[in-house]
Amino acid sequence: MSEPIPDLPTDITPQSRDFARWYVDVVRRAELADYSPVKGCMVIRPYGYAMWELIQQGLDRRFKATGHVNAYFPLFIPESLLMKEAEHVEGFAPQVAWVTHGGTEKLEERLVVRPTSETIIGTMYAKWVQSWRDLPILINQWANVVRWEKVTRLFLRTTEFLWQEGHTAHETAEEAEEETLRMLGVYKDFAENDLAMPVIDGLKTESEKFAGALRTYSIEALMRDGRALQAGTSHNLGQNFAKVFDIKFQARDKSVQYVYGTSWGVSTRLIGGVIMTHGDDGGLILPPRIAPHQVVIVPIPRGNWRETVLPKAQAIRDELVARGVRVLIDDRDTQTPGWKFNEWELRGVPLRMEIGPRDLEKAQVVLARRDTREKSAAPMDGIGAHVDERLTEIQRALYDRALKFREEHTSSADSYAEFKDIMEGRPGFVIAPWCGSAACEAAVKAETQATIRNIPFSSPPAGGKACLTCGRPAASHAWFAKAY
Amino acid sequence: MSEPIPDLPTDITPQSRDFARWYVDVVRRAELADYSPVKGCMVIRPYGYAMWELIQQGLDRRFKATGHVNAYFPLFIPESLLMKEAEHVEGFAPQVAWVTHGGTEKLEERLVVRPTSETIIGTMYAKWVQSWRDLPILINQWANVVRWEKVTRLFLRTTEFLWQEGHTAHETAEEAEEETLRMLGVYKDFAENDLAMPVIDGLKTESEKFAGALRTYSIEALMRDGRALQAGTSHNLGQNFAKVFDIKFQARDKSVQYVYGTSWGVSTRLIGGVIMTHGDDGGLILPPRIAPHQVVIVPIPRGNWRETVLPKAQAIRDELVARGVRVLIDDRDTQTPGWKFNEWELRGVPLRMEIGPRDLEKAQVVLARRDTREKSAAPMDGIGAHVDERLTEIQRALYDRALKFREEHTSSADSYAEFKDIMEGRPGFVIAPWCGSAACEAAVKAETQATIRNIPFSSPPAGGKACLTCGRPAASHAWFAKAY
Repeated sequence: MSEPIPDLPTDITPQSRDFARWYVDVVRRAELADYSPVKGCMVIRPYGYAMWELIQQGLDRRFKATGHVNAYFPLFIPESLLMKEAEHVEGFAPQVAWVTHGGTEKLEERLVVRPTSETIIGTMYAKWVQSWRDLPILINQWANVVRWEKVTRLFLRTTEFLWQEGHTAHETAEEAEEETLRMLGVYKDFAENDLAMPVIDGLKTESEKFAGALRTYSIEALMRDGRALQAGTSHNLGQNFAKVFDIKFQARDKSVQYVYGTSWGVSTRLIGGVIMTHGDDGGLILPPRIAPHQVVIVPIPRGNWRETVLPKAQAIRDELVARGVRVLIDDRDTQTPGWKFNEWELRGVPLRMEIGPRDLEKAQVVLARRDTREKSAAPMDGIGAHVDERLTEIQRALYDRALKFREEHTSSADSYAEFKDIMEGRPGFVIAPWCGSAACEAAVKAETQATIRNIPFSSPPAGGKACLTCGRPAASHAWFAKAY
Repeated sequence: MSEPIPDLPTDITPQSRDFARWYVDVVRRAELADYSPVKGCMVIRPYGYAMWELIQQGLDRRFKATGHVNAYFPLFIPESLLMKEAEHVEGFAPQVAWVTHGGTEKLEERLVVRPTSETIIGTMYAKWVQSWRDLPILINQWANVVRWEKVTRLFLRTTEFLWQEGHTAHETAEEAEEETLRMLGVYKDFAENDLAMPVIDGLKTESEKFAGALRTYSIEALMRDGRALQAGTSHNLGQNFAKVFDIKFQARDKSVQYVYGTSWGVSTRLIGGVIMTHGDDGGLILPPRIAPHQVVIVPIPRGNWRETVLPKAQAIRDELVARGVRVLIDDRDTQTPGWKFNEWELRGVPLRMEIGPRDLEKAQVVLARRDTREKSAAPMDGIGAHVDERLTEIQRALYDRALKFREEHTSSADSYAEFKDIMEGRPGFVIAPWCGSAACEAAVKAETQATIRNIPFSSPPAGGKACLTCGRPAASHAWFAKAY
């Protein structure tokens, strides 16, 4: 039996009125992050950081299962090192922070605060690699990076952000390509299974690839305002950095070869993705796998509840914790149950459990799902298994709902007129034939704001179709969307 | 039955010949860390970083069990913020890195790269705290910090280092003092139980306290060269930062009060402490609790070992992993068993397991302890429990040995002549009566290089004794040592 919970008033702007405003309201009211006195830099508050810790755990486990180890490289990069790879400089030099003084002295050579670590890590790999026996090197780093941004948004684009960056070195081009795609697969698996965020994977265009890479692949998610979010990238660096940083090894045939490199990263931006994939006008909705509290128990304070209801709530908490569920009892007596219901809804807790004196009599609890807002009773006996099941259900339901939303906001266009209609109407992903030229890509962007998100690995053959803009024969299909 | 393993030659300088050289040799040969192209900054290599991950886990678990949560604050601090607290400025301004340009533009206000985060965190607490209901705030941050150092040493003193910094705010002075001592206790517990590193705890003198604190407490360990290492500090900040950053709250009696603050931190320096507490001329010796590999299995490659020995080794590995033991099978066929024995000894693996065809016949394995270098056979049946027991034994033995070493290098001195004799002879901790004046403290340092490490919480009463240097009545005893 279930009954809907009435909407409670919140001070959050409705999504339909102003999505960007809704986003900021949710981030701040749910205490995920806050503005800091440093322009463009945010503070990740404990609730938001707890999500990041769960994201780290989910990814780190997968990195280690695929043979990677963690290490740590310096925050600072000497100017001369950053300047070695031509494309890389062009991409990053305009957006780095410069350290010019250490203590009371002016530095002989300026340092940049790392915007990414290919150059400093490449320098070390050149020292460490001598023989094919030293390969592959499969290293990941959890770190902060800084990119000087003009316009910033909490989690989505900040001057400093937290991320992981994998950097690997291989004997052959084939191995490097395999690794690049393997890690893209890890990202997709994590996004879909842990964040309940469906993504499309594919190849970035030349103009959108990483500065210095041979090829960049990405995963792209669709936010509830119909805009795409690049959620992770994996780069095949080829021998570009190896040649510049002199990362050579003696091959099995005794010849001297340059290694083949990859790098790949995701960042705290994923938290923004989760918020905009699942949230509603009531606030945050968290997939159980990354919810800091999967269940919040609200005891109903009637009669001598501290002697009767509370101990039972604690016993249930202990039972759930023993099963590995993350549970919080909210027994503050400064707040009413109604206030608490609203608060934990706003903060996206997947499952709320209410226990009052009457529930105690019936040996039951009341469960309220955040995603559907359905309330139902469940017997105390066997509550652990019941909660596990509900959480699995919610995780799946959130993914299904997000996938349905994406499907409803995905279309194909064979003519430019059709394409523009879609982009002006209800935005989303549009798959369309493309000749492969940067000029056409730029023209679409200038006219519609939509960019090519990536080129799908498999799509209807483009043979015989004409490019969306120029009409020449299409080389492939491409995913277009307005993006964050 | 057990037999000693003969010493194998290594390219590590003996401790007795040059301890500082031995230290660097171990760090580099064991691949814990490496020098980087950035002056004073090191690279923490995977094996060293795996130790740091285990240290983080051990501490983070304890922080959470004592009610703390993690968060993340900006890397950059505006110059004006750093300059607000007078003592703090004086302590830190001479040793910070300055960011003067962002992208292509000169900044209006310079930023420092955080040397510690009291100022930026204090600013945020001022926004977040309104009422006594918002207290206590119990936040910890895992982060990198930068202090411009003239002389650096791998792990012990580097320009950039990794650490955790706890920052808390409380209603009363009593609560802040309790918290300060609680976290010192957490550090002591962690150092002694996980790092097997005995420490003495106590109060820092005025001249050695944290810049801006009311009182600083520390834990101090003794390295095998007889020098002390400050391994962790916990500061009672009183209302100093609260007054400067305006962190006020409405108290229970409706009056407006400033919060009472604490901060506390330990860093990657702990890894240096572990190396110098336990290592010997064969290299590193790791306590099992922070050993990346607690057991390394070396299959002896005779006959068709890949079909016979290796599967058995894998089965034992799986059994141990299921019990939560960190195990590696070294089945490289590019190296001999002798080379592997030497290598894993050098890298400090607590327990080596050898399995050859003859062991297979006897249904046994050979175990070699790194700490005692004893070899013994153990039946394969029940090997999991046997290994668990050995690891527990090694953990305890390392602590006991370190404690014995400290006791043998601890003395008391009632006269300055006696004190100087000890400091010129075999160094270590010396407890001596002290009048409490900074002048006497400075005089001892100038003449003997020894500094006051801390003032013990309980020591023989100093009443009636005379200060080591000036002869005036002693206020207390103090721990002296030459320190890192």
